[in-house]
Amino acid sequence: MKTRDRILFTSLLLFNQEGEQNITTVDIANEMDISPGNLYYHFKGKESIIETLYTDYDKQLTLLLNQSMENTLSVEDHWLFIYVLFEEIYKFRFFYLNVADIMFKYPDVERRFRRLLLLKIKTIEALCKSLLERLEVEVDEGDIRFLAENIVQSMMYWFAYQQLVRPQEKGEDLVHLGVYHILSLAAPYIGINQDQYLAIIKKLYKKT
Amino acid sequence: MKTRDRILFTSLLLFNQEGEQNITTVDIANEMDISPGNLYYHFKGKESIIETLYTDYDKQLTLLLNQSMENTLSVEDHWLFIYVLFEEIYKFRFFYLNVADIMFKYPDVERRFRRLLLLKIKTIEALCKSLLERLEVEVDEGDIRFLAENIVQSMMYWFAYQQLVRPQEKGEDLVHLGVYHILSLAAPYIGINQDQYLAIIKKLYKKT
Repeated sequence: MKTRDRILFTSLLLFNQEGEQNITTVDIANEMDISPGNLYYHFKGKESIIETLYTDYDKQLTLLLNQSMENTLSVEDHWLFIYVLFEEIYKFRFFYLNVADIMFKYPDVERRFRRLLLLKIKTIEALCKSLLERLEVEVDEGDIRFLAENIVQSMMYWFAYQQLVRPQEKGEDLVHLGVYHILSLAAPYIGINQDQYLAIIKKLYKKT
Repeated sequence: MKTRDRILFTSLLLFNQEGEQNITTVDIANEMDISPGNLYYHFKGKESIIETLYTDYDKQLTLLLNQSMENTLSVEDHWLFIYVLFEEIYKFRFFYLNVADIMFKYPDVERRFRRLLLLKIKTIEALCKSLLERLEVEVDEGDIRFLAENIVQSMMYWFAYQQLVRPQEKGEDLVHLGVYHILSLAAPYIGINQDQYLAIIKKLYKKT
């Protein structure tokens, strides 16, 4: 691994574990056993590391969100899609554990984070629509929009909330539980097919 | 107003406006035009201010939550209850804008915040049950628990999320919108009376 990539890898690890606000570039250099000068040769400060990490995250998430809209999906496909999305959020969870603070400190990240958020809402809205159509449920646009915003908000703060309610739980288990929770949010909209839908997602939850 | 109360008042104002992590005791003293020594006479540091503010918040919220369980309520009562709860959260919103960071830095607050969270879930669960019973809906315990957790999570990150999606919106309007959002979460559980329920809360939303 090249030094530049190792810096990014180590930063991500430390930010996720300790919180971005508790880690300096000196901590990162120490953890890697390199000099602060060597780190500085690659990144001119923490801001530059954060922005590079954010660019990685934004690129991967945008790709994922754009792909999802290509065709109508089965419940199993939705499960997989939300799962991959959650894994990506988990990988970069430090952005979500202190959103307000990070947005305040890094205005460039804030601007792009907000744009990504709108794309997320739009995509999840399209997915909810496709899911409900496939299950032959008639729902009005306002309800779908409401459900989508609720899903996006829940996903966004999932790890922060779980850290409070279930501090002992392992990250991987929280990803599984999160996917199950998110898909459950759609259940009450489904009406008579609700039990069948819940049985499918419960099965997927237990299998993983 | 006594100096001690003025310190608490000013701290709360600055924490809410600028974020707790960006404010030092020197900033608070400067804003009040008193010496850091004078502030130190009343509070031995930021931690002690935070803990005192949290004690205020915890006391008021606990009182509110315990009162709510005394009798079965109408939809209007639920509206009012959630409204008062939201106003209280808004008043101390800095705790919620950077939850993870604050819990990390103030373990004593974390312990009590977690206990309060459990009381919140329990209370909201009881309220959901009372609301659905009053509307003559049969829902199983698992669904009620799920709805309650979803409501508590939504309330908790409401202002943080809105700061991202609607940065221009005024705090007071966000409280109204929040109450409407929270009560809407129960709508899909209500079945055939859903339209009537939504009409009531929409009317309450427009009236306020």
